[in-house]
Amino acid sequence: MIVPEVNADAIFECHKKNIIANPNCSTAQMVVALKPLHDRAKIKRVVVSTYQSVSGAGKEGIDELWDQTKSIYNPVDNKPPTKFTKQIAFNVIPHIDVFLDSGDTKEEWKMVAETKKILDPAIKVTATCVRVPVFVGHSESINIEFEDFLDEDEARDILRESPGIMVIDKREDGGYVSPVECVGDYATFISRIRQDVTVDNGINLWCVSDNLRKGAALNAVQIAEVLGNKVLKKG
Amino acid sequence: MIVPEVNADAIFECHKKNIIANPNCSTAQMVVALKPLHDRAKIKRVVVSTYQSVSGAGKEGIDELWDQTKSIYNPVDNKPPTKFTKQIAFNVIPHIDVFLDSGDTKEEWKMVAETKKILDPAIKVTATCVRVPVFVGHSESINIEFEDFLDEDEARDILRESPGIMVIDKREDGGYVSPVECVGDYATFISRIRQDVTVDNGINLWCVSDNLRKGAALNAVQIAEVLGNKVLKKG
Repeated sequence: MIVPEVNADAIFECHKKNIIANPNCSTAQMVVALKPLHDRAKIKRVVVSTYQSVSGAGKEGIDELWDQTKSIYNPVDNKPPTKFTKQIAFNVIPHIDVFLDSGDTKEEWKMVAETKKILDPAIKVTATCVRVPVFVGHSESINIEFEDFLDEDEARDILRESPGIMVIDKREDGGYVSPVECVGDYATFISRIRQDVTVDNGINLWCVSDNLRKGAALNAVQIAEVLGNKVLKKG
Repeated sequence: MIVPEVNADAIFECHKKNIIANPNCSTAQMVVALKPLHDRAKIKRVVVSTYQSVSGAGKEGIDELWDQTKSIYNPVDNKPPTKFTKQIAFNVIPHIDVFLDSGDTKEEWKMVAETKKILDPAIKVTATCVRVPVFVGHSESINIEFEDFLDEDEARDILRESPGIMVIDKREDGGYVSPVECVGDYATFISRIRQDVTVDNGINLWCVSDNLRKGAALNAVQIAEVLGNKVLKKG
């Protein structure tokens, strides 16, 4: 299993206090993509819009999408939404977790705060988190502004060589990853790597991951593994 | 019918050449939202990620989502994708129209080029266009950087008073618009208006519109109406 080397010392410090912090699923996959690029060209600002699957809301979220979609084909079964605030079948909902005073949702705030905590407090993040009618697999449209220039080809090479990342990026029909294809996989998939010429040093990319693996269970195992290695080294 | 006053003179110039240019659906709704804000605080840069419905790809797109979703409940009917490059049922696809050498798709390039043409060549746009399993209604997560400071409350007031726009923006469960709710409506709906504090003068917003109305037929009628008024005035 490939473990990204994200802040192992911070994890060890938490361990000493008997606290293990596992980031939110949408943040987890984003920082895997950002870390190697930040090491090379220093990220200043990130604008991210998410396409998050219903399994992020647990089994009830999955059941609601499944049953509600079926009821559209057979309206006698029609049930009002309970887990989500609006119909999720054949719809998208720009709201995940509770609203904060700032107007951000807590999910959006987590992407801001956890990226700073895990990678670098200097990185500015603004996020819009959206629920989509997908069972498993979160997708993210990520726009990144760097301190230094980073060519799209170099960004692609860096990501290809980074642990935990699989780059699938051909500029042709099907030459990118969609969430149904990432299900059951451990990698964070990156596609659509493009220069953003609207700023001096910008890159756009598309990031997809199985939120039930990288977002939760797998990430906890990976943290435990990093921690185990640290304890062994220090012990 | 409320007609946004977008570049009526340009439309009239086209008419004299017997050309009527109707923008792409994803651009049409975005410029309706951007125009009044640009007039007030001058837009420098836009980062937009779209959530576009299958009806943007015509009747075949609608049929493919309907039939493919049904086949997931009844796999004997299983058919491979033909209209879209990958499964669209319970999935999202980061690809609309053909790829260009820049790595952008033509749909993304249109959002850049048409926004400049309709509003102001100085506005920089970077776009990521994504197909979602929604029948009708395009959604857009729009991040805007202005020349001058614009408070989120003022932005909300400006949008509320603008022609063709309906603001639904309460920071509570359901206090925003999703695509299934806009179907059959003529307005461009704006929600989730928030200060973006990662730049000096930033605003995030969520924009939803019936792509079959504002995106195509309605917009053509509105252009014809503007043109009619112009001809009447000049005639």
